[in-house]
Amino acid sequence: MSHVTTTDLYEVTMALSYLKEGMDGTATFSLFVRDLPPDRGFLVSAGLESALDYLTDFRVTRGDAEDFAAVLHRPRRDLEPLVGLAFRGEVRAVPEGRVVLAGEPLMEVTAPLPQAQLVETYLLSQINHQTTVASKAVRCVLAAAGHPVVDFSLRRTHGPQAGMQAARVGAMTGFAGTSNVAAATRWGMHASGTMAHSYIEAFPDEEAAFRAFARAHPGPVTFLVDTYDTPGGVAAAARVLTGLRRGTGCAIRLDSGDLGALARQARAALDAAGLGDVAIIASGGLDEYGIDALVRSGAPVDVYAVGTRVGTSADAPYLDSAYKLVEYDGRPVMKLSSAKATAPGRKQVFRTVGQPDRLALRGESPPAGAEPLLRTVMRDGRRTGPPDDLAAAHARLTGDLATLPEPALRIHNPEPSRPQISHRLSRLTTEVRRRLQAGVHDGSSRDRSSGEPPLTDREEAPRGVHATKNRS
Amino acid sequence: MSHVTTTDLYEVTMALSYLKEGMDGTATFSLFVRDLPPDRGFLVSAGLESALDYLTDFRVTRGDAEDFAAVLHRPRRDLEPLVGLAFRGEVRAVPEGRVVLAGEPLMEVTAPLPQAQLVETYLLSQINHQTTVASKAVRCVLAAAGHPVVDFSLRRTHGPQAGMQAARVGAMTGFAGTSNVAAATRWGMHASGTMAHSYIEAFPDEEAAFRAFARAHPGPVTFLVDTYDTPGGVAAAARVLTGLRRGTGCAIRLDSGDLGALARQARAALDAAGLGDVAIIASGGLDEYGIDALVRSGAPVDVYAVGTRVGTSADAPYLDSAYKLVEYDGRPVMKLSSAKATAPGRKQVFRTVGQPDRLALRGESPPAGAEPLLRTVMRDGRRTGPPDDLAAAHARLTGDLATLPEPALRIHNPEPSRPQISHRLSRLTTEVRRRLQAGVHDGSSRDRSSGEPPLTDREEAPRGVHATKNRS
Repeated sequence: MSHVTTTDLYEVTMALSYLKEGMDGTATFSLFVRDLPPDRGFLVSAGLESALDYLTDFRVTRGDAEDFAAVLHRPRRDLEPLVGLAFRGEVRAVPEGRVVLAGEPLMEVTAPLPQAQLVETYLLSQINHQTTVASKAVRCVLAAAGHPVVDFSLRRTHGPQAGMQAARVGAMTGFAGTSNVAAATRWGMHASGTMAHSYIEAFPDEEAAFRAFARAHPGPVTFLVDTYDTPGGVAAAARVLTGLRRGTGCAIRLDSGDLGALARQARAALDAAGLGDVAIIASGGLDEYGIDALVRSGAPVDVYAVGTRVGTSADAPYLDSAYKLVEYDGRPVMKLSSAKATAPGRKQVFRTVGQPDRLALRGESPPAGAEPLLRTVMRDGRRTGPPDDLAAAHARLTGDLATLPEPALRIHNPEPSRPQISHRLSRLTTEVRRRLQAGVHDGSSRDRSSGEPPLTDREEAPRGVHATKNRS
Repeated sequence: MSHVTTTDLYEVTMALSYLKEGMDGTATFSLFVRDLPPDRGFLVSAGLESALDYLTDFRVTRGDAEDFAAVLHRPRRDLEPLVGLAFRGEVRAVPEGRVVLAGEPLMEVTAPLPQAQLVETYLLSQINHQTTVASKAVRCVLAAAGHPVVDFSLRRTHGPQAGMQAARVGAMTGFAGTSNVAAATRWGMHASGTMAHSYIEAFPDEEAAFRAFARAHPGPVTFLVDTYDTPGGVAAAARVLTGLRRGTGCAIRLDSGDLGALARQARAALDAAGLGDVAIIASGGLDEYGIDALVRSGAPVDVYAVGTRVGTSADAPYLDSAYKLVEYDGRPVMKLSSAKATAPGRKQVFRTVGQPDRLALRGESPPAGAEPLLRTVMRDGRRTGPPDDLAAAHARLTGDLATLPEPALRIHNPEPSRPQISHRLSRLTTEVRRRLQAGVHDGSSRDRSSGEPPLTDREEAPRGVHATKNRS
């Protein structure tokens, strides 16, 4: 399966038309999330690395063009103009791990229009999914209030590829490990996991199962204690652990029932057996709400394992993301459709500690002390630096979380932080809207004559920009 | 990335212990869904084909074993027993496209215990995800009441792999097409799609955009009419379509606003322009509820395009699926944990038209006229027949839907159909539960001496079964 054909067909039909019309002028598309889901106070930027891998490798082969021709029922020669088309544009993006708010671009792609259009679907699929799951996972880390959180989601994610990304963004938000061996191998994470209920059931009784497990695994062991009756399972685990003397790192896992009450009983039983250093891991349908309730109740749970609800972001399994044309051939553009209007022009987000973010046009000067969130990560279709790593992304997130207002960080009923809109962006939006509503859709010359500096900067125009050949 | 290491670590730690203990007796795991999500009256079986591909290719390489050793911090030699382990078991499964109810196995895997255990995570990831999305997609087809439904979900699914499967299961449930070129190519589907709002915005006005599109695409065209103001967009589309004379197959697409009201206005405008054969496609946040409302209101929508909410099964993005050991070495087993108890023994589902399904033990005789749902699809790790195709799966679904009671088919507040439990399965469940609660976990000899025929059949035991070497 070619990544190039993993696209919505309309990207292809549009690109063909652009090429036919000679419309290879420079376009900028802005990828952002319109509104946050109800229980999110902020987003965590994720998906950029795999998006850049895709753009780096993007090149339409003859085979891809043949596939396009076949589904369009067109002769192969009609698709010939696409063959060899590669991505040679500029990408400005918010690095992974940063806090992002509604309306703030996660990425802006500037390239000749056909290139920038053809990559839309795949970019959205990467950024939307990974940002969705990262923005859920971080809430588990916040709810756990310092207790380790581990990812057990692989069996319920939307296929194995989604499971890989869930493990990766979990690590980005601070998870202590994952059950997913392939992800742990690929990204150097701690791998976590011991036994299922089926393991216990395959033995005559729990104690026999625990002893057999310890025979096979010489290091610290974790015993699953809820297969039949949790107090009995805890007692069996305590008997085996007492004899083992494996030192610190051993644990029991609770996977069903009233996890808080069972954890208290288990803690008392383990302590009474002199096993004060045996940890308690809780799992089974947990997400940030379940973790929060356990933590607030003071339940003696040491480690939280989350799976299904986090790996699928079950309460908000998608974001209202968009990849919108904001400028074409020097002309700011926008969509007016009801409830889906977009702001025109290339943008920048300025972040200042202790103040709301400012969503501005790209050419605006930063407020004093402000940091610009969008960085140039690709020029001429090549990364401007080496691939980012998860530890750096996690460090960025930790920094941003420290400056977010408390209402945005809440587990229940968070209040989303919102950026302020700069005066110049507001004015441009009003002007473009007025122009479009008047039916005067090409007003670039009017913008330039307004007496103020140009509303979008020109200095950083990407190389490879072509003049528009046909402006009917 | 190896498919073998795309697994939860605990499958590996359990398999190592089984091998050390000589526990390679025959195990049967049953993959089923415990309870349906609130707004589902039934499930559509999906994911079997990719699951069988995985099992066919499953073999632990030396590289996989090295990855396992690394994440376990064990010497390579400790993982040596796994090298070369392949799947050589039997799989009985419900073919794709069949209606399945809560508690009914979608698949039963019978193999030497380490093999059957190692494949758990990946099998769940395939069956759970695809059955989840298929069970959502079919409701869109039902709601559309004969109108074509097409898949536009790729940009919002949980990554591209999930998007491929969403397109495939959409076709299985009767979708008329997909926007996903790679999926259309791979599975021979109709590919659908024309233009985005960005396309319109790149031109001076809508009419110029539509004319350019028609220049590039000689066949029937679809124009997106809601970029600025829908009635204006419809008027522009009508002017261009009137001149084009492209025959049937042309359409306009509405993607925002009050789709029902806009469709009525657009229909009237098109008809007044003599364009009665131009179809109306509706998209934008649609799922079965939105489609149902439009259809019931009599809105003149001809084709429904669904995306995000269907491709992610947004209201129920996972199923409560389980892969449970139900028999080991001739001994029926079960789990007793609160709210997660499982029924022991290998099973069969008998379906009779006009009657509830019967969930029974595998050896039971079928009721008169009943059809067994689980078929043997793999023996000795090899498929028993050629890969299934989507058309056959769709035909099976059509047949099953025709026999489902109306309450299960409802869009709003469906009542899930439930299987009856056979007398012998109930009795076995009671006996095993009693035995486990009494602490007598190995009671296989007791089952055999009960005076009735054996509760699970022996005739179809898979080849390659080994005697258990260690029953402590």
